[in-house]
Amino acid sequence: MFRARCLPRETTNLFNGFNRHHSTIVKNSVYGDFKSIPKDKSEIPTHELLQRVGFIKQPAAGLVHWMPNGLRVLRKLESILHRRMGEIGFEEVSLSSLSPSHLWEQTGRWGNTELFKLKDAKRGDLCLVATCEEEITDVVNKSVQSYKQLPVRAYQITRKYRDEKRPRFGLLRGREFVMKDGYSFDIDAKSAMKTFDDVNGAYRKIFQDLKVPFKSAAADSGSIGGDLSLEWHFVHPTGEDTLMECDSCGEVSNVEKTIGFPIEGSEPAKEASVKYFTTKDNSTLIAMYFPSDRIFNPSMAKSEIDDIDLDDSLTNDQVLEKFKKDADEVAVKGIIRVIDPRVTSASKLPDFPDGIKFQRNNFTSFTDISIVDAHEGEVCGGCNNGHLQSMRAIEVGHTFYLGTRYSAPLNAGFKDRDQKPQLFEMGCYGIGVSRLLASVAEVLRDPKGIAFPASIAPYEASVIVAKNSDESEVSKLVEQLDDAKVDFLVDKRDSSLPMRIRESAMVGVPLCVIVGGSSHPKIEIEVRSRPFTKKDDKWAWEVAHEKNAKDWQWDSFVDARGNEKHVVSLEKVAEVLKVLLKDL
Amino acid sequence: MFRARCLPRETTNLFNGFNRHHSTIVKNSVYGDFKSIPKDKSEIPTHELLQRVGFIKQPAAGLVHWMPNGLRVLRKLESILHRRMGEIGFEEVSLSSLSPSHLWEQTGRWGNTELFKLKDAKRGDLCLVATCEEEITDVVNKSVQSYKQLPVRAYQITRKYRDEKRPRFGLLRGREFVMKDGYSFDIDAKSAMKTFDDVNGAYRKIFQDLKVPFKSAAADSGSIGGDLSLEWHFVHPTGEDTLMECDSCGEVSNVEKTIGFPIEGSEPAKEASVKYFTTKDNSTLIAMYFPSDRIFNPSMAKSEIDDIDLDDSLTNDQVLEKFKKDADEVAVKGIIRVIDPRVTSASKLPDFPDGIKFQRNNFTSFTDISIVDAHEGEVCGGCNNGHLQSMRAIEVGHTFYLGTRYSAPLNAGFKDRDQKPQLFEMGCYGIGVSRLLASVAEVLRDPKGIAFPASIAPYEASVIVAKNSDESEVSKLVEQLDDAKVDFLVDKRDSSLPMRIRESAMVGVPLCVIVGGSSHPKIEIEVRSRPFTKKDDKWAWEVAHEKNAKDWQWDSFVDARGNEKHVVSLEKVAEVLKVLLKDL
Repeated sequence: MFRARCLPRETTNLFNGFNRHHSTIVKNSVYGDFKSIPKDKSEIPTHELLQRVGFIKQPAAGLVHWMPNGLRVLRKLESILHRRMGEIGFEEVSLSSLSPSHLWEQTGRWGNTELFKLKDAKRGDLCLVATCEEEITDVVNKSVQSYKQLPVRAYQITRKYRDEKRPRFGLLRGREFVMKDGYSFDIDAKSAMKTFDDVNGAYRKIFQDLKVPFKSAAADSGSIGGDLSLEWHFVHPTGEDTLMECDSCGEVSNVEKTIGFPIEGSEPAKEASVKYFTTKDNSTLIAMYFPSDRIFNPSMAKSEIDDIDLDDSLTNDQVLEKFKKDADEVAVKGIIRVIDPRVTSASKLPDFPDGIKFQRNNFTSFTDISIVDAHEGEVCGGCNNGHLQSMRAIEVGHTFYLGTRYSAPLNAGFKDRDQKPQLFEMGCYGIGVSRLLASVAEVLRDPKGIAFPASIAPYEASVIVAKNSDESEVSKLVEQLDDAKVDFLVDKRDSSLPMRIRESAMVGVPLCVIVGGSSHPKIEIEVRSRPFTKKDDKWAWEVAHEKNAKDWQWDSFVDARGNEKHVVSLEKVAEVLKVLLKDL
Repeated sequence: MFRARCLPRETTNLFNGFNRHHSTIVKNSVYGDFKSIPKDKSEIPTHELLQRVGFIKQPAAGLVHWMPNGLRVLRKLESILHRRMGEIGFEEVSLSSLSPSHLWEQTGRWGNTELFKLKDAKRGDLCLVATCEEEITDVVNKSVQSYKQLPVRAYQITRKYRDEKRPRFGLLRGREFVMKDGYSFDIDAKSAMKTFDDVNGAYRKIFQDLKVPFKSAAADSGSIGGDLSLEWHFVHPTGEDTLMECDSCGEVSNVEKTIGFPIEGSEPAKEASVKYFTTKDNSTLIAMYFPSDRIFNPSMAKSEIDDIDLDDSLTNDQVLEKFKKDADEVAVKGIIRVIDPRVTSASKLPDFPDGIKFQRNNFTSFTDISIVDAHEGEVCGGCNNGHLQSMRAIEVGHTFYLGTRYSAPLNAGFKDRDQKPQLFEMGCYGIGVSRLLASVAEVLRDPKGIAFPASIAPYEASVIVAKNSDESEVSKLVEQLDDAKVDFLVDKRDSSLPMRIRESAMVGVPLCVIVGGSSHPKIEIEVRSRPFTKKDDKWAWEVAHEKNAKDWQWDSFVDARGNEKHVVSLEKVAEVLKVLLKDL
């Protein structure tokens, strides 16, 4: 019993539910080093800026200490994930960070050189978990007997570890990082696909909550394995990934997975290279011809020749040697030639090797399989109509339909309706939470600092108390904002108003509320910036302003320095803040 | 800037603030294995019971996977700690779990054999943090320049690691555990003592929130070091610690720290043993005589002979050998005899060793220093009046005033008013959170299962839907409880009412709300148990009942099986629940 399923109407996750109702007063600077930040912040890389403003400290390459303000942002981000995962019935768990070797040996992942490994007092082998497919499958296998108990959907937000040889870019490629990893166990492929779709729907909402434009892209499953996967990206010139988007069908995919064809009338490749493979049973030689000046991507041939052995650790000579050696032992010897469509009779092809025996009637040629990474402007292999647009992107999430990739080696399953044993149909779903935080910062940086969306900014508003104010005004304002559940801090320091506003902007607080400024006794609200585009014809505040400007004594203008300002009577500050936050 | 200080009026911590407003519907059992739990639960140790009800799983000795309901309890416990630490101005941080060796080498703690150590890809030495004195001192040292920035108070609730050779008792002695560790940095000893007192005040509130009776006890600082420390305990016969409490002055201390004297007229020790020590400069031999049948505790002599070298790894012969060898090199050679007050002239003393050279005028005897663990009934060394009562206890927290134990070797400090460098005066404050959860379970176990206090129970109430109910009643009730921010689940399973009530009781939910039971259309509320004693003359519900029984159609009685029941009209369920929860 006691298995929690969130009701659909439930919108706040129970755990880590972020309570925005809070006020804090600021004393003095400890963890940030604002004086060291030059006016021209473009010189400072984002991971350095996150340290200077005191969000994180890095005790060593790839390791991170979270300081109070960074932790606030992280927790708000986690809170969004908790809510959206809860809505689709994922229950939160928290698995051990240490995992004994035996399960990893069964799935063949113990050899991964990026696993942090250690020995305990009894010389047992442990690793620090990088992901938890093995452990969660073991738990669910031991807990579930019958199809009646499925599906099981579980997730956690915990630290993960990777013994990265070249840790870099701060939170983007660390050795310890915070990851949301979800796992699902279903009775069959159809149910598993439903879960996969549900999670992708939740991911869409998560990124919409953040308001940062994103793309989901078909992707290669890589070392996690499995049959189908979707990557989630922020488009940004500093990204390490390349995505291709078709301007006609709109399909987006990672370039490693994008099928492109040369545009009609384009020049054929001048020179072609060849790479040899065999089928897994070594009965057929596969010769792939591709333009010498392009990035070879043989995985694209897999859907046409599904028994191809794509091990590319062997040189051409080694493949031929292996093929020749077995030639007498295998009954039928054939040859398949895969010729990239960019290679034509006008291209210079390498010679066919000598001494290969094969049956003439077992010789096939494919000329319509693209086996190189697509280029911008080429024809989309999905719709055969549009042209591909290329863009750089930062990967922030990945969802996998795994099938039985883990349940088979771990022999993990259940009894179906007919009491017959079946393997779990699985999925796994990751979001690098600390990476996501850094990516949002990277994408939304501006000359003022980091423009966090209001949903994850360390505070929604900084209340900056100027000398001109009296204590009763401040306490009235604090009470009002508390009641309205605004998440704010009160900055009563001695330093100048502009300096305090600048520091608030650097850490990404979207609004400053100035008490006792030049408009005293009215309150000034300064909007840090508008990092997002308008969704409707007007900003939410413009609609509210048209209605209430007079009653609320609400003036709005852009000052000489280009800052958007709102001046309003003390009683209406919370209401104006709430409206402004809608677009921030 | 942006240093958060909680206002005193703030009672909910911003982060991990546990939002009780939640309802979940129960589908079927996954993680718990209720069928395996016998009616007589006394056979099952608590750590085993926590697994059977599905709170945790243990993938290997000393490692823990937190399952949804266990995680709920853990989060609620954390939420209490967040609130109480926030109230005294501790800011939350979250330090890396991996720590390079160099800081640990400076403080002399790298040699600790219980540190989990590992090497990274570049063969650098790292450990998994057991506590974070080194790392936080380094962070604060790099962040703070001036006395104006002090005090700094920081805490975290994170996983800690200990390569325990004999992991046992589940969460009580694990290799990975959840710990709340707080650290403070002050300008001088007086301010540090103020912080120490503030934290002890917060600890008192934390344990009061849990309602489980507790004791704070003067304690030995052990390997953490420092000058003064206080342990926090639950009194329980299964505890591994022994506390002594004076029936007159009320002072409580760990037996390792308790000074006791023999009661007047008691028999002197028949036979005494001797143990030799020297002073650190090896100039004086210290011979300690104590009853052979008692537990020797030489640390109690430290306050009288502060330069004693308490290294007890040497045998008596080795100490004498060392003393003899150096005898000519050190100017003054003396002897101190410490004779436990239980040893008198009537006791048989071992012979004084031959060949020890010392100056006759440098020979001292102390006969009033107790150097054995006190026994129950002996006279309190604190007040010299009352008698000591002994009790077994489970340690759940420890606060330390550290002085400069860590800031000195790490050379960590600040500039004072006169621009002179000073070392931080530090304190550190631990609560084993996962251990605390298990300890509460151990102390509050009863024949029904685990009687968690309402503040940390997985749910405040189970709404059990019987066949006799209709959907509109249930939804009315759910809406009412949601509005009242009760944390509840809705159990719509097919299994029998008594079975569902029993399972709810096993996991520690304090109240069952039965819709469609024998009192239909009225609602039945069953109180699981009353684990705590009445604070006032009457239970809170009795007071409310006297006032509202008629208006609310509220009947209360104890049924034939001894269960406390309340029957009330549907409209008033939330109000009755709120009142009942006050005493649970």
